[in-house]
Amino acid sequence: MSQGLTRSLGEFVSKLRVEAIPSEALDWVHTGFADCVGTLIAGSVEEAPAIVHKTLAPPPGEASLYLVGPRVAAPEAAWINGTAAHALDFDDVALRGHPSAVLVPAILAEAETLRATGAQMAAAYVAGYETWAELEWREPQQLHEKGWHPTGVYGAVGAAAACAFLRGLDAERATYAIALGASQSAGLMANFGTMTKPFHAGRSAHAGVMAARLAAAGLTASPDALEHPQGFLSAVSPTGKVDRASPATAGREWRILRQGLSVKKYPLCYCTHRALDGVLDLLAEHPVSARDVKSIRVSTSRRNTKVLRNDRPQTGLEAKFSMQFAMASAIVARRAGLDELTDAFVQRPEVQALLPKVTVEPDDRPDPKRSGAAPWDLVVIETNDGRRLESRRITEERGSPELPLTREELWAKFERCLAVGNPRLDARAVFDALMSIERQRDARAFARLKAAA
Amino acid sequence: MSQGLTRSLGEFVSKLRVEAIPSEALDWVHTGFADCVGTLIAGSVEEAPAIVHKTLAPPPGEASLYLVGPRVAAPEAAWINGTAAHALDFDDVALRGHPSAVLVPAILAEAETLRATGAQMAAAYVAGYETWAELEWREPQQLHEKGWHPTGVYGAVGAAAACAFLRGLDAERATYAIALGASQSAGLMANFGTMTKPFHAGRSAHAGVMAARLAAAGLTASPDALEHPQGFLSAVSPTGKVDRASPATAGREWRILRQGLSVKKYPLCYCTHRALDGVLDLLAEHPVSARDVKSIRVSTSRRNTKVLRNDRPQTGLEAKFSMQFAMASAIVARRAGLDELTDAFVQRPEVQALLPKVTVEPDDRPDPKRSGAAPWDLVVIETNDGRRLESRRITEERGSPELPLTREELWAKFERCLAVGNPRLDARAVFDALMSIERQRDARAFARLKAAA
Repeated sequence: MSQGLTRSLGEFVSKLRVEAIPSEALDWVHTGFADCVGTLIAGSVEEAPAIVHKTLAPPPGEASLYLVGPRVAAPEAAWINGTAAHALDFDDVALRGHPSAVLVPAILAEAETLRATGAQMAAAYVAGYETWAELEWREPQQLHEKGWHPTGVYGAVGAAAACAFLRGLDAERATYAIALGASQSAGLMANFGTMTKPFHAGRSAHAGVMAARLAAAGLTASPDALEHPQGFLSAVSPTGKVDRASPATAGREWRILRQGLSVKKYPLCYCTHRALDGVLDLLAEHPVSARDVKSIRVSTSRRNTKVLRNDRPQTGLEAKFSMQFAMASAIVARRAGLDELTDAFVQRPEVQALLPKVTVEPDDRPDPKRSGAAPWDLVVIETNDGRRLESRRITEERGSPELPLTREELWAKFERCLAVGNPRLDARAVFDALMSIERQRDARAFARLKAAA
Repeated sequence: MSQGLTRSLGEFVSKLRVEAIPSEALDWVHTGFADCVGTLIAGSVEEAPAIVHKTLAPPPGEASLYLVGPRVAAPEAAWINGTAAHALDFDDVALRGHPSAVLVPAILAEAETLRATGAQMAAAYVAGYETWAELEWREPQQLHEKGWHPTGVYGAVGAAAACAFLRGLDAERATYAIALGASQSAGLMANFGTMTKPFHAGRSAHAGVMAARLAAAGLTASPDALEHPQGFLSAVSPTGKVDRASPATAGREWRILRQGLSVKKYPLCYCTHRALDGVLDLLAEHPVSARDVKSIRVSTSRRNTKVLRNDRPQTGLEAKFSMQFAMASAIVARRAGLDELTDAFVQRPEVQALLPKVTVEPDDRPDPKRSGAAPWDLVVIETNDGRRLESRRITEERGSPELPLTREELWAKFERCLAVGNPRLDARAVFDALMSIERQRDARAFARLKAAA
């Protein structure tokens, strides 16, 4: 019998060398760090990370809050920063979740503590991404269905792998770190649309930091915790029909090259993005005012209809998980950005009046290329004067790996995020440093940027 | 429609009054506190809590480690003490898990911080127990089957309820605390037999403390996080067939009166206890030496055979989850106590020689009264001289609610635990204080006992 998954991943993490990582993979690492740090700083002024910060009351330490803020103990920094990174739900998407919002805060916190180089940080990201990917492809169902939040449950394992790499753990201890991450995997879908959703990302980043530290200190765990019949893969699987047996390919192929990252253009749940692309294109061609709208029908996958649980949102947070709001915002503001995801905008009478006019129709046909998606999404607007406007069939979101944002588009989002979260920072210098992270001397490079600002 | 489960439990916790708790319930609370503190102190000299302590490096605070040790921040104290309480797997059992190992460390830590009275501590235990019980009865399957460790997953919710009570949260915030506990529920069966198992109890105690603190500080969560189709009950359920709809009865009936606690006489997994009672009774009547044994057959429930995963243990920790070891220890030492659960004893040649002679036969018939158990367990010894010795059919373990230990038996276990973990403490004074916890002025009563010692 070939070596089991947990040991294989422990070995992969312990043997990973920065030089072995293809440069195309580093392009995705740049995107992950830049997009995560941007959304983290934009999210730092939100209530959720502030509450987590106040409650954890972290002791002073080596790890910076919000890249250039006060330095506190690394586990707490990972927790607070992870909550900030996901607070706006504006951070990148891949592997059925939000990998960077968990991995980057864990890596930044431990890298500062351990004085790791930028190259080590980049490789730690790849270690975490590939570990997450090795779990994700084995599951044919949607974790969402039965209640598990993939970012929370996969994130703890991925972050454990990333931190095990940063600590230079040997294969046995890296295996234990991964098993310890898996035993902290948590987070419920039912808490979507509340502050507990971003909390999941932070909690998993914290779990990853702790898992590697505990394993380094000698806490033992099972070397088959992932693939055991009563282990991680089975536990989080909706039906238990999950591939526990296939050998791991991590280190022999790079899933990040095939799967990449999707960067969000809109600070709403990713399940709204195809429809938003479609409706905004449609409105650019056929301007329709709120008063003109008789009805809007959106066709999207059943998974998406379940995730988007708020059909009558009253707050900016609730609106993130509302297809009804996404359509209303497109009609009223011709966009759906940080300025629209506010309680005041959501509660505007013309927005509220549009919500009941939006019908969401679940499409049960699977997209063979994209787990959980339908082959395409579609938006149809009917106007009071009898027009019927139909969007194109939207198969790829802008910002997806197939239609990636240009560097300039990525920069525009980053700049806007820093304007919201920390306008005094030199956004261009931070962006350029993140987009070449493997060449930074260490994580303190960012603290130095602060001094320069 | 009646109020959902999460809100009902939030309301129960926020409205619970010490005076409303029946005195028979307090008898179980005494048992829970005394048995947990005893095993916690015995476990305090184990490696797992020492590693967690060293790794967390807790800042100074108000909460005592190991009842009378250094005072550190409460969340970390709950984590370290919870790990110690479960380190020997000698702590009490109920509700398909180990409630006191999670609830008591969380309660002790927050009670010291908040200067709660002994009566409030007792009521917090009942709040946690009843919340745990409200989740547990709804699930017809065994959480074990698909990989979830009930102590970890139910424990985080129960501890959140207990701490929400101690903090005096209103119904809304207590509801959020429970939802936040549920979103931290974690712990894999596959990590049984390693230090990560007791870590689960500590991690859940920490999660409960944090959940109540975060909710108190204003972090929001979903008021239907338990019963939502993508919520806690569904997520941890092996098949998803779980009662999400029945109204909660917490506060109107007291499940603790019906279900009580089982106190362990042996520091092995509870799944070995019926068979150990049976084989020890058999050996008392028919002494058999290790050399005489040809074979030992044990019949027990299939759940038990899955939990007891180590058929060839090499360490004291592995031996806790080994029916083979339980039988070997009974033959060689005529008991299975703290002195036998050591690497040295497990590795003794006559013990190792017996392991392959033990066969465990799964019994698929359900015990209608006890979820996961068979109607009875049975041990059959065949000797080299042709005798066939059959135990009685063991239906109730000694120490179970049906055959509870006497106060003197409980004291004997407590005294032995303190002799192992902290021989300088006045064991009798601590025991008496715990057995009347509702009359203690506050949690500092124990620190004062230290001063007297």
